[in-house]
Amino acid sequence: MSGNANSNSLQMLAGHVDQDRLWQRHLDMASIGATPLGGVHRLPFSKEDAESRRLFLSWATARGFGTEMDDFGNIFVRREGTEKDLEPVVSGSHSDTQPNGGRFDGIYGVLAAFEALEAIDDAGIPTRRPIEAVIWTAEEADAQFGVGCLGSQAYANPSKLPRLLEIRNNLNIPVKQALAELMEDHLCVGHRAFQSPIAYYVEAHIEQGPELEARGKTIGIVTAIQGHRSFKVQVTGEAGHAGNTPERLRKDALVAAMQIFSELRKVFHDPNDVVRFTVGEMDVVPSAMAVIPGSVTFTIDFRHPDPETLQSLGDRIAVVTRENAGKCDVTVSELRHSSPVVFKGPVPEAILKAVESLDYSYMALPSGAGHDARYIAELAPAGMIFIPCWRGISHNEAESAKLVDMVAGTRVLARTLVELANL
Amino acid sequence: MSGNANSNSLQMLAGHVDQDRLWQRHLDMASIGATPLGGVHRLPFSKEDAESRRLFLSWATARGFGTEMDDFGNIFVRREGTEKDLEPVVSGSHSDTQPNGGRFDGIYGVLAAFEALEAIDDAGIPTRRPIEAVIWTAEEADAQFGVGCLGSQAYANPSKLPRLLEIRNNLNIPVKQALAELMEDHLCVGHRAFQSPIAYYVEAHIEQGPELEARGKTIGIVTAIQGHRSFKVQVTGEAGHAGNTPERLRKDALVAAMQIFSELRKVFHDPNDVVRFTVGEMDVVPSAMAVIPGSVTFTIDFRHPDPETLQSLGDRIAVVTRENAGKCDVTVSELRHSSPVVFKGPVPEAILKAVESLDYSYMALPSGAGHDARYIAELAPAGMIFIPCWRGISHNEAESAKLVDMVAGTRVLARTLVELANL
Repeated sequence: MSGNANSNSLQMLAGHVDQDRLWQRHLDMASIGATPLGGVHRLPFSKEDAESRRLFLSWATARGFGTEMDDFGNIFVRREGTEKDLEPVVSGSHSDTQPNGGRFDGIYGVLAAFEALEAIDDAGIPTRRPIEAVIWTAEEADAQFGVGCLGSQAYANPSKLPRLLEIRNNLNIPVKQALAELMEDHLCVGHRAFQSPIAYYVEAHIEQGPELEARGKTIGIVTAIQGHRSFKVQVTGEAGHAGNTPERLRKDALVAAMQIFSELRKVFHDPNDVVRFTVGEMDVVPSAMAVIPGSVTFTIDFRHPDPETLQSLGDRIAVVTRENAGKCDVTVSELRHSSPVVFKGPVPEAILKAVESLDYSYMALPSGAGHDARYIAELAPAGMIFIPCWRGISHNEAESAKLVDMVAGTRVLARTLVELANL
Repeated sequence: MSGNANSNSLQMLAGHVDQDRLWQRHLDMASIGATPLGGVHRLPFSKEDAESRRLFLSWATARGFGTEMDDFGNIFVRREGTEKDLEPVVSGSHSDTQPNGGRFDGIYGVLAAFEALEAIDDAGIPTRRPIEAVIWTAEEADAQFGVGCLGSQAYANPSKLPRLLEIRNNLNIPVKQALAELMEDHLCVGHRAFQSPIAYYVEAHIEQGPELEARGKTIGIVTAIQGHRSFKVQVTGEAGHAGNTPERLRKDALVAAMQIFSELRKVFHDPNDVVRFTVGEMDVVPSAMAVIPGSVTFTIDFRHPDPETLQSLGDRIAVVTRENAGKCDVTVSELRHSSPVVFKGPVPEAILKAVESLDYSYMALPSGAGHDARYIAELAPAGMIFIPCWRGISHNEAESAKLVDMVAGTRVLARTLVELANL
């Protein structure tokens, strides 16, 4: 293919992204597990989950795309490349939802990938590499099983499989059993081995945060999935009578907790507003109006996309806490430590090139939430495309995205996939 | 009586305070409702309460003192004065306890008054006015009925009686019924009318706070029962995802609550350490590690002995709260407003004179807790004598006082009563 022909057909590609088709597919999917308040309740491994996957496979088959499934139920829909032996470029997300979740989280990434495949096909653009649209199984499993992204974790690192299969939900059903029931349901499709090589991975998703909307940008080029550390701080003072105990003899655990929180907020203050620092729980004991708090427990949720900042700033929590405990005793325990995944190299570069050629407004930003791309990045160069969502609300029936942004994201994705498939 | 004779017999008086008798009476009382952990469980209106009152009356009768009771069960034990028509000097406290309370709270004031009567009698000191030892009924009623000092309230202001009698406890039993059962139990004693005039009222009590012990003083001359205002502050922000929501778009109710608390602590800071300012409850909603707090409710307990400070400083709470709420909404509601009762004039002056003549170390201090003296002060000049209690612990089975301090307080009380009874 010459540079000119390539450039011409690429310019045609955006016009082949069909907004009515894209929207109709969202409506069709949203009808599976629809809630009265306009959301979707399509839990991982549920019969609604199975139904959404059957629908996806039926569209793929009708279109003549190839289909494969691995032993964790991850589904791959394939448009062949001109060089069939090359590793595919893969794009997608998940079709399950949180309990009473929204109509866009996950499924948008699946349908944008599928629409991109159709648009590329409709535009008659050949690519060297195959391009695939994927549904990863049980991304939203954390609400029932306490762990998410099961399918992408299993695919990227099958050594985790024995552990993942034994995790039980709140009804004591193991993943193994739930997965077997889901797989049973499916049509016969080709088999895909875990860890089958992927050339590049691109995931489109609603932002699930307010930045794009707040800054008036259409496309977010995701720089990283931020790292996440969480802590529990226990402050122990001494309960006492609020009327009788003078200030100088008090060991007020809430005063100490407040002082610690206040100093930590100064330490974590970030003029660039990238740091995410939250105290979400604070429990006071004994919690009586006329009793000086004897102990206070609070949590710290700290996230940052930069690995060094995550480490160094997070490590200051214990130090600052001890320095500001006054007359109280403190203990700090770390509950979670997930490193950031940084997206750089060919995928974000291809996204940037696509955005610029399509002339959409954009910004680079980290993802606050976790995604399947976190795990597939262990296997292949990866990146993500965000589109705005209303007020940043997600995991909620009120979740909403504009069709014009959905189309923009799909156009950027399609162009990115072609770019990567010809690398 | 000449000045010299008076001075001589007064010097004898201290020696007539019998520490063994005083201690034995405490042990006898502590055996009624004794708990396994060394405390006393003698709830108002209970059969243990009735038994303690019978015991008190039996001692009085054995000693030949007169006894009277009013229609709320308040018991008066009288040593006559040389001028019988003069209004009596009254001293005492209560014999009931908090649930699993201590062996000194209340009963010490009753037994010190009775010991003072006996010591004055033993010393053969005539006084112009009668001197009486009193048990006020149901001082500790707040734990079951939500209101305390029922007997002294009724005596000082019988217009409250219809309301007080209708208050129900946590078993839905009205005061009226509980009181009728208590009264039934008693021996026939003389009748005392509510609001019968009192010349002066003196109440001895353990401090129930740590000041005397901390400062190494034996006697506290109580300047006031401090005023008490309490508030509920509701801070409303917006819940949001801890990973996705940037600082500048947050309305974090806990951050606002912390800022308000911090500024209020500055406003309420008192170099003299008289102000009592406590946040004892703080409830965070939704209280999840990864969710920015959407609302926070906290309480403020503020006490001060000076009426003007109680008013002006308390009134700043709403202002400071609003000024420091940031992007959150706040509402402040006042739950309680009790004015201070200031003790000045003849009673604290007589206490001071007694302490100085006995050469005990002392300090002036306000009372953090409420006492019957609060209400009797509406009827007569009043004052209180505090003795140290271990670590300020009270309303607790671990409550403890030293016999040497109990004797000192009783000596001061006896001398004060003689002084006032000759005014």
